Amino acid sequence: MCGMEKTVPAIDARAKRDYFDLLRMQSVGADPARLPECEKCAGWIKSYIEGMPGFEAELYRGEGFEDAPPIVLARRAGAPGAPTVLFYGHYDVQPEDPVEEWLTPPFEPTEKDGRVYCRGAQDDKGQWFAFLEGVRALIGEGGPLPELKIVLEGQEESGSSALIALAERLAPRLKADVLAVCDTHAGPDFRPAIVAGLRGVVSFTVNLYGAPHDLHSGTHGGVAPNAAQGIAALVASLHTPDGAIAVEGFRDGILPPSDEELAAAREGSQSDAEYEAETGCAPEGGEKGVDRILRNSFMPTIEVNGIHSGYGGPGGKTVIPAAATAKISMRIVPGQTPAGVLDAVRRHLEARVPRGMRMEICDVKPGAPGCRLPLSSPVFALAARTLSAFDPRGPVFQWDGASIPVVSVLQDVSGAAPLLVGFGREEDRIHSPNESYGLDQFAAAARWGREITRAIALSDIARKGGEQ
Amino acid sequence: MCGMEKTVPAIDARAKRDYFDLLRMQSVGADPARLPECEKCAGWIKSYIEGMPGFEAELYRGEGFEDAPPIVLARRAGAPGAPTVLFYGHYDVQPEDPVEEWLTPPFEPTEKDGRVYCRGAQDDKGQWFAFLEGVRALIGEGGPLPELKIVLEGQEESGSSALIALAERLAPRLKADVLAVCDTHAGPDFRPAIVAGLRGVVSFTVNLYGAPHDLHSGTHGGVAPNAAQGIAALVASLHTPDGAIAVEGFRDGILPPSDEELAAAREGSQSDAEYEAETGCAPEGGEKGVDRILRNSFMPTIEVNGIHSGYGGPGGKTVIPAAATAKISMRIVPGQTPAGVLDAVRRHLEARVPRGMRMEICDVKPGAPGCRLPLSSPVFALAARTLSAFDPRGPVFQWDGASIPVVSVLQDVSGAAPLLVGFGREEDRIHSPNESYGLDQFAAAARWGREITRAIALSDIARKGGEQ
Repeated sequence: MCGMEKTVPAIDARAKRDYFDLLRMQSVGADPARLPECEKCAGWIKSYIEGMPGFEAELYRGEGFEDAPPIVLARRAGAPGAPTVLFYGHYDVQPEDPVEEWLTPPFEPTEKDGRVYCRGAQDDKGQWFAFLEGVRALIGEGGPLPELKIVLEGQEESGSSALIALAERLAPRLKADVLAVCDTHAGPDFRPAIVAGLRGVVSFTVNLYGAPHDLHSGTHGGVAPNAAQGIAALVASLHTPDGAIAVEGFRDGILPPSDEELAAAREGSQSDAEYEAETGCAPEGGEKGVDRILRNSFMPTIEVNGIHSGYGGPGGKTVIPAAATAKISMRIVPGQTPAGVLDAVRRHLEARVPRGMRMEICDVKPGAPGCRLPLSSPVFALAARTLSAFDPRGPVFQWDGASIPVVSVLQDVSGAAPLLVGFGREEDRIHSPNESYGLDQFAAAARWGREITRAIALSDIARKGGEQ
Repeated sequence: MCGMEKTVPAIDARAKRDYFDLLRMQSVGADPARLPECEKCAGWIKSYIEGMPGFEAELYRGEGFEDAPPIVLARRAGAPGAPTVLFYGHYDVQPEDPVEEWLTPPFEPTEKDGRVYCRGAQDDKGQWFAFLEGVRALIGEGGPLPELKIVLEGQEESGSSALIALAERLAPRLKADVLAVCDTHAGPDFRPAIVAGLRGVVSFTVNLYGAPHDLHSGTHGGVAPNAAQGIAALVASLHTPDGAIAVEGFRDGILPPSDEELAAAREGSQSDAEYEAETGCAPEGGEKGVDRILRNSFMPTIEVNGIHSGYGGPGGKTVIPAAATAKISMRIVPGQTPAGVLDAVRRHLEARVPRGMRMEICDVKPGAPGCRLPLSSPVFALAARTLSAFDPRGPVFQWDGASIPVVSVLQDVSGAAPLLVGFGREEDRIHSPNESYGLDQFAAAARWGREITRAIALSDIARKGGEQ
């Protein structure tokens, strides 16, 4: 047997029914047309949490965010002096696009070979729901229990704008000792993993305009500005031919990892061959000649998420495209700030607007800076002991290339020590068609929810005791 | 009054009804799903031509092209010894995409302020239909008439593959003295224009593949190959920062224009300011520092007609796109061959496939080489005299940047002298949403059809007399 215990109790019928009901709601938080689905989902979650003895829950909508998906806030009192756990998750999911690549309906949970296929099956509905199922079991068993606070938002996939803006105002209700998040991956070979760092994220859209409408590529070829070529040139200019970021000032101030961090990151990572076997592609992105662990965990990126211009249908169409768009997201690391990298990229692009074209930068989402947590944190020690009971190999530490922008904000306002442990696998294909979550992963997340909640309740991590 | 005579007789009710019926058929020849529409359209045209006294018409489908839109072939005998006119046009139209930018339904002819809005209103249904209406009027008046041959195909917009392949076999039925085509533009200020050269065209699609599916741009950022960035780099590599073609060998052997041709091309061209006023964009495409007339008429181009990869919907989606595609068309000039430029571009791209990605070149359409006709041609002299009766300024000569690949093929097999005179204007927006054709343009094309047919009948251009 490899990895964590596989002989987990099967998910019971009530839990599976609830899980599937949760997945059916099309809570794509970034799509204004799905706001009613998000509201329905938030209402469902409130009822679900209120179904656990001792919890009070509400749907929160702060001033200025009346049209945003509501935030679910819940609290369950603990014994006097007990530590407080703030549990964060998000109920919004990525768009299901491209729909035609799904083998089953994207919002109809479909169980096959021990996995549940559905948008959100893992990210993040499946992970937080499983964690809360563990908490629910612990409550059912009579504890021991810490004070529990829950915040579940509906905008994580699009930048957590409401929660980030409102966090300061909610601070008294968010104070805690431990900030628990179940939205990350397990380590290689399903070994448990504690996240010791996250990259930050900043995203924006570039639009480029040439002629007021598409022009005939023969009549106007060589004369009219071509927006498709313009956007290609702009996008290509962001990297050197060797894949290094070519934007002046972008990498200024970056804090390199310590030797201890780099060694731990290596231990928690796959080999290149394992990476290729898992993803189906060689790890050939990013800067040539730089170690994959560095590129993935400790260096920033500029990734183009989409580029679109002109004709894309069957056959050909001999036009000079009038307009083009590129969606770009950047991952940043400690030492960089969202505003700093945005400025650098904006200057870079503005200096390169192709002749005869007009550029527009819009949809800017200055998500959050990156973070790195000290390996010596007492919460990490507690988590490591708990996870060692799952897997005799104990946990690995990871510096996740992904971002949960709201985590650093919640860390600040709650005063809590972040504890990010999740049970994702690459085969879950989050953000892609045919997302899924294994029932073994679900069981591991549920067990983790129960065990870490119990461990924190029994620990001496008093209020502020988790402070680093 | 500027330009050609405006006091043209209005299009009559029967002709307008026929014109609108012709436009309603969605004969997008490049789209296999529209084959039935193309067949319907060809059948309609056959009946229309058979409605003119003396014509015989048939729908022709050669071996190997059973699934291609049929070719309409028609003939009307002339007096013994009379010259023969071969009239060529195409009934296929460009796709209507992007549909959402049309102000009226793309296949419902809508008349407004003296213009008819519809896909194909000009290119080429409107132009050839108007020309044939002129021929029809001449027949109604009792002539004089040459022998008339008509070939109308349904694949011009996608490369004329059936007609080009079958032309040799059809040669006996295509022999003529003059090859008349009405598929081009009038000169500046609607002065009549004779086309003395066309660029050739070659087109293809590049597909680029990275991971087998989209990956999370955080988890995999800096590690997985990004197909959107890869296609941008490939596309950008085709030109230097100054807009010159950067493909080695691409421009080898190009024949520059003579001083006489260059002077005539200047006379037949707008100023940069007129170009900008007409198109709404400054003529800033192509190679920096090179004369616009040269760039447009006598130099080759590589134009990207479309580039697509990754997410393009509302909001953001933090993915690393797995696949990307670019549709590319190239205009070539005398001295270049379709096979030669394709080889050069293929070598260029193959040498630059980004690390970790797989490239595929497909959908290759080696349309045709460019052509240049001698200004001393007797057919040009006849056409110039005829057009001078329209407009006292007489015609200008143009070297059109666009391509009608089949023209050089028909020229070869028919032995005829090409005579390309059309009445398009930039505001017609061919290949774009809201294509239209002015009723004054329609009347001019009809008058031209009548007058040049009569002039050829009365001329001493015997068989082969038009040879150059």
